[in-house]
Order: sequence, then C-alpha cells, then structure tokens
Amino acid sequence: MSASLSRPRVGVWLIGARGSVATTVVTGCAAVTAGLHPPTGMVTETPAFTGSGLPALSDLVFGGHDTLDCPLPKRAETLTAGGVLPPGVATAVAAELEAADREIRPGGPTPGDTRSEAELITAFTDDIRDFVHRHALERAVVVNVASTEPASQGPGAPLPASTLYALAALRAGCPYVNFTPSEGMHHPVAAREAGHSGLPYAGRDGKTGQTLLRAVLGPMFAQRALRVRSWSGTNLLGGGDGAALADPAAAAAKNAGKERVLADTLGTVPEGEVHIDDVPSLGDWKTAWDHIAFDGFLGTRMILQTIWQGCDSALAAPLVLDLARLTARAHEAGVSGPLGALGFYFKDPVGEGPAGLSEQYDELVRFGRSLGRPDAEGGGAPPVGDTGETGGAL
Amino acid sequence: MSASLSRPRVGVWLIGARGSVATTVVTGCAAVTAGLHPPTGMVTETPAFTGSGLPALSDLVFGGHDTLDCPLPKRAETLTAGGVLPPGVATAVAAELEAADREIRPGGPTPGDTRSEAELITAFTDDIRDFVHRHALERAVVVNVASTEPASQGPGAPLPASTLYALAALRAGCPYVNFTPSEGMHHPVAAREAGHSGLPYAGRDGKTGQTLLRAVLGPMFAQRALRVRSWSGTNLLGGGDGAALADPAAAAAKNAGKERVLADTLGTVPEGEVHIDDVPSLGDWKTAWDHIAFDGFLGTRMILQTIWQGCDSALAAPLVLDLARLTARAHEAGVSGPLGALGFYFKDPVGEGPAGLSEQYDELVRFGRSLGRPDAEGGGAPPVGDTGETGGAL
Amino acid sequence: MSASLSRPRVGVWLIGARGSVATTVVTGCAAVTAGLHPPTGMVTETPAFTGSGLPALSDLVFGGHDTLDCPLPKRAETLTAGGVLPPGVATAVAAELEAADREIRPGGPTPGDTRSEAELITAFTDDIRDFVHRHALERAVVVNVASTEPASQGPGAPLPASTLYALAALRAGCPYVNFTPSEGMHHPVAAREAGHSGLPYAGRDGKTGQTLLRAVLGPMFAQRALRVRSWSGTNLLGGGDGAALADPAAAAAKNAGKERVLADTLGTVPEGEVHIDDVPSLGDWKTAWDHIAFDGFLGTRMILQTIWQGCDSALAAPLVLDLARLTARAHEAGVSGPLGALGFYFKDPVGEGPAGLSEQYDELVRFGRSLGRPDAEGGGAPPVGDTGETGGAL
Amino acid sequence: MSASLSRPRVGVWLIGARGSVATTVVTGCAAVTAGLHPPTGMVTETPAFTGSGLPALSDLVFGGHDTLDCPLPKRAETLTAGGVLPPGVATAVAAELEAADREIRPGGPTPGDTRSEAELITAFTDDIRDFVHRHALERAVVVNVASTEPASQGPGAPLPASTLYALAALRAGCPYVNFTPSEGMHHPVAAREAGHSGLPYAGRDGKTGQTLLRAVLGPMFAQRALRVRSWSGTNLLGGGDGAALADPAAAAAKNAGKERVLADTLGTVPEGEVHIDDVPSLGDWKTAWDHIAFDGFLGTRMILQTIWQGCDSALAAPLVLDLARLTARAHEAGVSGPLGALGFYFKDPVGEGPAGLSEQYDELVRFGRSLGRPDAEGGGAPPVGDTGETGGAL
Repeated sequence: MSASLSRPRVGVWLIGARGSVATTVVTGCAAVTAGLHPPTGMVTETPAFTGSGLPALSDLVFGGHDTLDCPLPKRAETLTAGGVLPPGVATAVAAELEAADREIRPGGPTPGDTRSEAELITAFTDDIRDFVHRHALERAVVVNVASTEPASQGPGAPLPASTLYALAALRAGCPYVNFTPSEGMHHPVAAREAGHSGLPYAGRDGKTGQTLLRAVLGPMFAQRALRVRSWSGTNLLGGGDGAALADPAAAAAKNAGKERVLADTLGTVPEGEVHIDDVPSLGDWKTAWDHIAFDGFLGTRMILQTIWQGCDSALAAPLVLDLARLTARAHEAGVSGPLGALGFYFKDPVGEGPAGLSEQYDELVRFGRSLGRPDAEGGGAPPVGDTGETGGAL
Repeated sequence: MSASLSRPRVGVWLIGARGSVATTVVTGCAAVTAGLHPPTGMVTETPAFTGSGLPALSDLVFGGHDTLDCPLPKRAETLTAGGVLPPGVATAVAAELEAADREIRPGGPTPGDTRSEAELITAFTDDIRDFVHRHALERAVVVNVASTEPASQGPGAPLPASTLYALAALRAGCPYVNFTPSEGMHHPVAAREAGHSGLPYAGRDGKTGQTLLRAVLGPMFAQRALRVRSWSGTNLLGGGDGAALADPAAAAAKNAGKERVLADTLGTVPEGEVHIDDVPSLGDWKTAWDHIAFDGFLGTRMILQTIWQGCDSALAAPLVLDLARLTARAHEAGVSGPLGALGFYFKDPVGEGPAGLSEQYDELVRFGRSLGRPDAEGGGAPPVGDTGETGGAL
Repeated sequence: MSASLSRPRVGVWLIGARGSVATTVVTGCAAVTAGLHPPTGMVTETPAFTGSGLPALSDLVFGGHDTLDCPLPKRAETLTAGGVLPPGVATAVAAELEAADREIRPGGPTPGDTRSEAELITAFTDDIRDFVHRHALERAVVVNVASTEPASQGPGAPLPASTLYALAALRAGCPYVNFTPSEGMHHPVAAREAGHSGLPYAGRDGKTGQTLLRAVLGPMFAQRALRVRSWSGTNLLGGGDGAALADPAAAAAKNAGKERVLADTLGTVPEGEVHIDDVPSLGDWKTAWDHIAFDGFLGTRMILQTIWQGCDSALAAPLVLDLARLTARAHEAGVSGPLGALGFYFKDPVGEGPAGLSEQYDELVRFGRSLGRPDAEGGGAPPVGDTGETGGAL
Repeated sequence: MSASLSRPRVGVWLIGARGSVATTVVTGCAAVTAGLHPPTGMVTETPAFTGSGLPALSDLVFGGHDTLDCPLPKRAETLTAGGVLPPGVATAVAAELEAADREIRPGGPTPGDTRSEAELITAFTDDIRDFVHRHALERAVVVNVASTEPASQGPGAPLPASTLYALAALRAGCPYVNFTPSEGMHHPVAAREAGHSGLPYAGRDGKTGQTLLRAVLGPMFAQRALRVRSWSGTNLLGGGDGAALADPAAAAAKNAGKERVLADTLGTVPEGEVHIDDVPSLGDWKTAWDHIAFDGFLGTRMILQTIWQGCDSALAAPLVLDLARLTARAHEAGVSGPLGALGFYFKDPVGEGPAGLSEQYDELVRFGRSLGRPDAEGGGAPPVGDTGETGGAL
C-alpha cells in the first residue's frame, strides 16, 4: 500500500482506549475503510465536507491510554454479544483491533499510584510523543472518551485525571477533544496553558441522544412562540457510563450541559429535573424519556413526550471520528483556540456559537468549507477560527 | 376610540367562520387585544416582527362564510366546556363574538343548492365586497379554515367549494390563505386566475402538530447522517376534523402533505404509513404518535418515538392570525404571487422554500424584515416576493 | 326527607379536610347523590356490592381536621379552574360544601404549637366525638388524606401528626383508614393500641396510578413466566403532593410501597429506580412513565413502557368514598383489626392478602358479600375479618 | 440415551414448519433441553405444572408441512442475524434442526396445484400418520403456526388451506391447536367433523403482545369502575406476518380477536380502531402502541398509553411448546372437544371461559392440576373438559 504510506498519516489518541466508545471507533473506522459498512452517522463523509481536506479514514492510526487491561479484540467480542457491533465485524477487522491494542499504554492515576501529578503528565506526554514518532505521524489528536469523572472538588483539590491528560496533549503539541463531561481542558490550570499553546481544542460532552433532541425541539418551541412550562427527563443506561453517572457528582456535570441547551434555546430555564439511572441490564443501550409541558394560545396546556432508544457507543463513535478529522485538519490549517464551530457535536460547547442544532449545522458546514479553501485556491480567505482572541495565531 | 377609527383597519374573512378554529381566532384576538392573555403562539408578536408594519390585532375586523347556523357565542361556550378556551374568556369578549357573528354570511353549496358555480362565486364575492365596504376596510384577507374536503375528483368534476371561495377572493381583490389541505387555489382553474391577479396567496395545510415535529426531526436525522428506515404515525382526533379525515379521500390530501415534509427533509421516503382516526370522545384534542426506526453507525438499529398531545384549534388560531397579518402586509407592500416565505406555517407550501423548520423560520424573519424596510426608509430595497416570475407585477 | 333522617347516618372525618382529595370527595359525593354525575370510579356502586349493606352516599356526613384556612367552596373553585372538577359542579353543590366546611376543625401541631402530644390527641378526639354527637351519627370513619409526611425519625422522635390523628380515632372509637404513605396507625405506639381497640382499620397509601398498573402488569409477567430484568419509573406531579414528595424522606415511604407491589407480584425485586418530581405547573395532574425491560424465550430482550396521565384527586376521591363505606360497614358488622381484604385499594396493605390486582378484586368482592350475609339471612356465616388473631373480637 | 428411548415420545407437527415461529420452537426446545437456556416464557415449566404429567421437552419430536424450501438451519441463521435467536444457539443445536428439517413435507395447495381438496387432505393425513409410525410416537399434536390467511370468502368458496390441515389432523387422530387467526377448525366443515372426533382442540390466535396487555388492562378498568371511552392501537411489524396482515382481509380476522378481548373484559366496545402496518425493516420485531382514553370521577378525562416492543417469534414459541404439551396430555387423559381452559393463550378462545388474564391463568392452573390427578391418585376426579357436551366422551 505504498500510496497509503506516502500519504501523511494522522494519529487518534484515545483516553479510555479500551472502553465501549473507543472500541467502536476503532472497529468502525476499519469496517468502513474496508467497505463492510456505509459511513452512517459520520457527518464528515457527507458531500458537504468533500472539499474540506480532511484526513482519510484509512490514514487514521489509533492508540491511547487506559487503566484497564482487557484486550480490544476481547472488548469487541463483548460488544458484539451485546448487539452494539454487528455479528462478524469484529472478526473481520481483528488485525486493526490488534494493531490499536498494541498502541495502548497504561493510564493513571491508578489506585495506590505514587507518581506525582507532574510525573503522570510527563509519562502521558512521552507516550503520545513516542506514538507520533514511531508511526511518523504528521500529527495526532487526543480525544477523551473515558468514563465521566465526578465533578471537581474545588481550588485545593488534586487535578482530575482528565486534566492531566489534557495537559499532556498540550505538551505533546496535540489538538484536544473532550467528548465527555469531565473537566479536562476546562480546569483553570489547563485552560490557562491552552490559551498560550496555539493549539485548537473542542468539547465538551458529546450530544448523542436526549440533548440532541432538545437542541432541535427547544428552538421549535421558541420559533413558534410556545411557552414551555416544564421539561422533565429520565435516562436509563447500563454499561460503565450508567454506573459512573449514578454518582450524583458525575451526573451533575452532565446535567449542567443538558440544562444549558434548554436555557440557550428557550431563553429561560423551565421547571423539571433530569435523572440518570444506572440499569445494568440495559448494557450499552440507553433510553431517554422527555416530558415537555407547554402552553399554547390562551394558555391551553399541551404535552410533548419523546422516547429515544439508542446505543450510546454507536451514536458516539462516528462523531468521535468526525471530531478527530475536523480537529486534525483545523490544526493543519493553523486554527487555534476553542473550536466554537464544532458546537453541533457538544452539549456544552467551548467558544461562541448558536445553541439550536440547525444553526450549529450551518456553522459546521461553513467551518468545513473554510478549512478547504486554502488548499483549493492557494491563498484564499483564512480559515474560520472561533474567536479573534485566539484564532489569530496563524 | 377615535385613534383606532382613524387607523386603517384590515378585514379577516374566514371560510368556515363558525368552526372551532375560527371561533378560537376571534375569541383569542379579542382576549389578547384586551390584555386578558399574552399572545402565546403568535410568532408575529415576537420582537423579530416589531418593525414589519403588520396591522395591529386591534385593527382586525372579522367576518366570513359558513354553511352552519350555530352562533359564535354558543360555539365559544362549547369550546370552553371542552377545555379549548379557558373559563371566562368567552364571556369577557362576548361583544366581539357577537360583532363577528353578525358578519357571517351563508356559505355553499348546501345540499339541494340550485345555484350554479358562477352564481355561488358571485354571491361570495359580493359578500366579501360588502364587508369591506361597510367597514371601510383598507383591505381584507380571505382565510380558509373550513373542514377538509375530499380530494378532487378529476378534470370533469364540479369545482370544490374551497375553490369557489378562492375564486371569490380573487374577484374581490383579496389576498388568500388556505390553512387546510383542501384544494382551494391549487385547482388549475383558480391557479390560472391567481397568476394574473397580482394578489399574494399562501398555503396550504397548517403545520400544527405531527408535521411540525417532523419538520424539525427530519433535518436532525439528515444533518447527523443517520439513516431513517421507517417513519410511522397515527393521529387520533375528534371534533369535526376527525370525522372529515376519517374519509380516506380527505385523509389522502392531508397525508400527502405529511409525506412531503419527510421526503424533502430526508431526501428519501422511508417505509411507514400515517393513520388518521376519528375518536369523537377526544373532542378538539389530538394525539399523534410517531415511531421512527433509524440506523446508526455500523447499522445499529435505534428508535425514536414522539407523542404529541395538543388542542388543534389552540395550535391553529395564533398561526391564522399571523398569516392574516403577514399576508395583509404583503399585499399592502405590493408583493404578489405565491408566498413561499410562509412555508414555516404549512405542510405543503406554495412557491419555493426550504423544508426544515429552522431554515423556514429564518426565511420568515427575513420576509418580515423585508416588509418593514420601505416604510422605515422610504424607498429602500423592495420587499421579498416569492419568485421573480410573479413578484412585483402590480 | 324524613326517610333520610330516620336512617342511621355515618360520619366521614377527613384528616386534611381542605386538601384537593377531600374537596373532591365532598363535592363528588354531593354531585353523585344529586344525580349530576354517574358514580364513575366507585367500586362500591357496582352491582357486586348491592347487597353488602353499605351506608348510602346520601347518608354520609363530612367533617375533618386541617391546618389550613381556605374555605371548601373556594378550594372547589380552584379545582374547577384546574380542570379537576367539571365546570358548574362546585356551584351546584355549594350548600354541601359549606356544610362540610362548618365541620372542619383546626389540625395540628402547627408551627409554634405549644400543646403536648397528649393534649393534641385529646383535642382531636374531642373534635371527632363532638361531630358524632351533634349529628347523632351512628358511627364515623376517620380517613387520612393529608399531605405525605417525611418518614419517621426513629425511636426517640416525636409522634408524627398522622399518628396523633390515628390515636384520636381509636380513642373516639372510630375505624381508621390511611390513604397516604404517612405512618399513621403503623407507628408502634398506635399499632399496639389498635390491637386492643376492637376497631377495624385499613391502609396504607392509595393505589391510584403507577402502582395500580404495576399490580396488574407484575402478575402478567409472572403468569407468563417472563423474566423482568428492570422496572424503572418516573412520576411528575404538581400540587401539594408534588412538593411534599420532592422531599426525599417523604418519597422514601411512598416508593417503598411501589416496590413492595413488584416484589410481591414478581417474586423478586428487579433493577431500577422510581423518581417523584415536583412539577408545579402540572397542578393536580400527574404523569407516570414506567419502563420495563424483560427477557423472553432464549433471553430475547423486550420492552414495555406505560404512560399514565391522570388527575390524582379524581382518582383518589371515589376510592376514599368506597373505603369509608366499607370500613363503616365492617365496623357495624363487628369486624376488627387490619382489613387485609381491602388490599385492592392500597400500595402497602395492612394484614394478609394477595398482591395482584385481580385476586385483590376477588377478595374485595368476597368481603363485600360477607358483610351482606348477616343482614339478609339473620345469623349466617360471620363476616370475614382479616386474620383470626384480631378478627375474633365480636 | 436408552432411558429416553424407552419413554413414550410425542410428536409436534407444525403447519408452517419453516417459518420464524416454528424455527424458534425447534431451536428453543433443543436449547432448553440441553440446558443452554432457562425455559423463560414457558408456563408449563413453572412449579404449578409439575404434577400435570406433561410430556418432557426432551420427548418431543418435530415435523410438519410447509410450502417453502429453505432448510431449518438456514432459517435459524437468518433469525440469529435478526436478533431473534441469541448468537451460537443455532449452531449448538444444528443436529436437532437437521432432524426436524428431514421431517418436513411439502404443504399445499401451491400455485398451480391440480390436486383436489380431498386429495390434499389425504396427502397431509398420510404425512402425519407416516411421521407417527416411523418414530413410534405415542401421539402427535398438530399446531398451526403458518402465516395468517385472508378471511374466508363465504359458503361456496374453496376450503382454506388451514382447514385442509385441520381436517387432516382429525383424520390422523391428532389433537389440533390453531395459534393463528386463520380459520382452521372454525370452518363449519371442520367444526362438524371435530364434534364427532373425540379429539381435543384449541385456538385461536396466540395472545402475545398487544392483546395480552389488553387482557390485563381491560379488567383493571372494569374492576375500578372507570369508564373507557376509546381504545386505539397501532401495530408495526415486519417479517412475513407484517406482509400477510397488511392485507385488510387477513387483518380483519386478527382485529376481531383483539376487539373481542375488550368487549369481553369491559362489557362494552369502546371507540377506536386498530391498525396493523407492515414495516419490513422491523424484521421479526413488533411495536404496539395503545392509547386508552377513560373517564374518572365526575367525568375527568385521563389517558393511559402503552408501548410494547417485542419479538413475535420469541413470544410465540414458548406458548406453542406449552400448548403442544398441554394438548397432548389432555388427549392422553381422555379430554375431548374445545379446550376452553386454554383461553390464557388465545385472543379468540374456543369453548367457554373468562376473558381476563388473571382468571384465565387460574383456570389454566386448575386444568393442569386436573390433568395430573388421575396419574397420581389412580382414579380420582375425571379431568376437566371444556363443556359437558363433548368432555369425557372418550
């Protein structure tokens, strides 16, 4: 495959590399590359992004950190039994799973870990640099897909692991994407360093189900001048995410993102709570029920209810691939700072941008176009950074 | 109220003037004008339309045609008992209901009617002209809110009543809005005449519930590159509309509009049917269940279900007021032809325009702005007609 | 109405006599008696109870305790505006509402109340005795329909108000029904006294919505040998009950009852949680969503979801009337102790009995028949008490 | 396995032997026998039936008729891919699938078939007799699990295929079970012959989803004296059944059974329709939405909605095994005529019996007990036949 080898390759370094999402990312990228499945769910494979100069799926190389040991092919087998991966795919791409498995390094801190925060950051940075070096990668994007952490403990507390990884990404010169509600680059220590890094970053908390719906239904009520009185929701999910989010501290971060979508699209925060229940028997499947009470003309009371039954990893994986490609290309194009144009993907987006999904989509398409222009026209308009403050680093 | 009298007043001539929607329109306009209720559900009362030069609610004068006899105050009482109108409102605006009631003329053709089509059109035209004349109205908009008719019978068949009224509107020099799926101005005879009339017109079939949702959810699936495999729906509704739509011929027109939204937003027509059931005990309330089966990454099967429980008349009435105001202002501003910019309101819009609700909203706001400019700036850019072909023909 | 006056009359003493449930009880009893509405929801008005010798609705006299001041006619007006009572009924039975209002005495302890527990019990007992005496009632039943209290605080804590009222009922010689999850007669102090009282009592926590459904769906799964893996639920409710149950301590008592139904009908406790959310804008209406994941043949995963939208007071009121009549008749017939045969009505029934609704119904009908026999046959089989231990007090 | 060979073996002759239900029956019986899966969904494996003398699962031998050619192992593979059978099971029981496959004979009439009805019946009878003979079976039960036929065409029409098979069962001396809504033994020609045959028979139309729910919810409303105003339903299903039932004539038979359950449990037929939609992409999975509008106290309007998402074949297969065992044992015990005691399993049961699921369950358990008594006590009470007319005639 000399053609492939001569093309610049791009690394995708996954924090939580042995989790369900990461395993689906690696499996799916290989399956789509091999033509076994169409790229359903990947926005970057639609015609709107043809000219954006994104790295090809076949040019992505996977590695990452994880604190667990279970080999990727084994994880893929479990996901197949659970109906997340279709029968036969994991076997068909066993070589790619094994290749990625060899590039996973131990994460941390693990229980009893005696390393200091500085030592951990250094170790993580070295792992990423070594990955880039050994594979002669043009660049690598660090993507956090690890289980949600409890919300931060305040000023004096130790740095959360997600922030250690974010700092390692910065020190290794890598763009960073936080697909989880964990703190990551939002911690003041990392945010400060990110501001000076000249690197692009995106996040946080992928918008895959209930919040995706809220981002289209919220604007509908606002545009129709209907008054939302209450918006209540319950999420049932199993898998690791269910257990992690059953911790109220972890759920708090996630729910803040969900509420932000409503506040931003409705202009007010309606009554109502959001519950996240751990229901282990649901495995990787999640069900979200939303109940919206609204007033119509003359105060008439009406109700909308939605029930979303999806597979979390299958919803997240194509977005992770999208984000890795877009962020890598943004880095290549010299964009730096918070990538507000990627708000389409997130519950709680960095930078500035609209809150309604349709406008976020339009902005994403514009961003994609801006990435493509310089290649095609040799010196046209500069790519669209998020804000003048940080985007002018070119 | 000399100030009010000196301001130009605008007529709203309702076809089906004794129906639930019309009664809610008249009651609600008076109640909002009197400050008894906020204008929930009226998009034209939001800040985006402040400068559009729309007629004030207090300047609207109501009349119309109907084949039934029941007085409006009596209808309002029934709607109050059914929970459509809040307790007390009908009594509070009894004077306005009686005033509108006095302006309702007999519709047709009624069973055994011996008048020819030409005679009916002339009678309807005279009624409208008389209304405009007696009230010294600056203009009047004709709005069809009558029960849905069976789909047309083909070339040789008699003109449907909705088309007789549409022709009367044209001959009376009035803009026309078809809020129902009936044929109205779509009949070739009327369409031809409309093309030469220099009048603006809009329609058809108000987007009030299930199709409103489809117009935001369809784009969501398309934007996320998720593959919709089937989209099935059932509507339960009582009232006159339930009975009318239980006729398969009447339902066919309505369902065509619903399918068009999916075809236009998804790019394909998914599997699945739409049912409309007459459930008299639901009265004016309707419930719409939608079941959407879609594929995610690697073909994983997922499901979204929505349940919409709304009051049809309360959903329709503020949109009818919006449409009357916008169409009247468009007429005043010299816009003619199909008002594609009003696609936000319709299942099956006339003219050209986007299919997703969010883009339709943007277009509506642009249209509102275009209506306002000439007044404010005295000779700025001309208002936005639907297409070059017919716009500006006045 | 000399016939009516000569018939023995029965008192219904409501704890929480100004609440939504009590107001609906008094209004509804009068409206049904007057023939304004059929007795929908009253099981004791079905043919199965014709010969049970129950007191007629027209023979019930209402009174009660409450810590609030709002007059019953005013409360009924509010409930009419909220759609709980149909328009016109409250006005039609204004005399009966005023009569009941005159029989409401101040409850307690109120904030700052300096009376001792013994003093409060004595005051309550005197109020009840006075009510019975002044109206020359044959007997009176005390029914707790007050807001749910927080769960008890342990051995040394003060007696909850519900237990003070329960003790007053015993001392006044009145049968007692606890329609709420509050402790009432379950407190050890009251339970001990009840055991020696020779009085019948019933409870607790009326089964009006989600748990009613669970009591028929649980047996279905068990009878079909389907394995329920998880049963999750969310309740949205406004009104006073929503606010009271938003307190986790109050919700705990309620949820225990809900779980008991599943444990008793399924034989195991499935995964899953129950949430009770206070959503004030829903008023007296409540929505309960249940999600049940179960295994079929060969472990195939299936899902049942239910959505119950009901009006709490309208669901509770006819059951309260049923319970007052049945308990009064049981007292008359000499039945004492826990009335396990009334498990049909409760989430967490006293005494012994089946958990499935259908078997509970059969037992209720048998109980009704047993109450009737002595009257008809003059000395046939004794009525069915709950257990031999306490039922032998005749 | 000499022990097994010496025990009397029982044949299960499946009409539609290559369909999804039949394939799941054969696969599941083998998998449960082998201890690969617990007998979830099989009521006859619960303790209540321990002493009923039912044939062991390991003693069942499968054969049948089908007009299709696809080998059973291939069908099982397809069902595995569709998520109906768990991964690995079909392979584990390949030998049993092949053994059953060898016992499948061509059904009919096929398109262009020139055989007369009498010839077809004779051919089918010979196939069944040959099966019993070659395997030295003690007896065989014929079970119809073929696709639903269109409703019968009236007096002069040819006998439906299901009736040809039913007649063949009678002539071969075999008990008969109709798990479908097809006419089968209900055709007057077959009904007459069944009456004289001294054979037991059961049916029709297995109660696996929406109607199962209706059979527990209908009694709930009746027992609580709540007035059901409308009961509307929509079923979405793919697979062969979806296509067959999209034919209105076939759906008519099925819907009649669904309505019967409501009429029998509620005492009236509420408003509302039932739709059955063919949605091929759902495969063997079906979704049933029910919307029930009911009145509570004083006419307050309330709503219950249910959504059932199940796998039709996995729901049906354990019931088919139950029915084969119970009917075989009834035959052995000398019961003849319509088995009304099996109403628990059917939408439209033969014979007499209650309509509520809970009472049907009680009757089933009594029936099971009656089957066991003669064995255990050597000459106790005779087994419970359905009606005196035909019961005990052997």
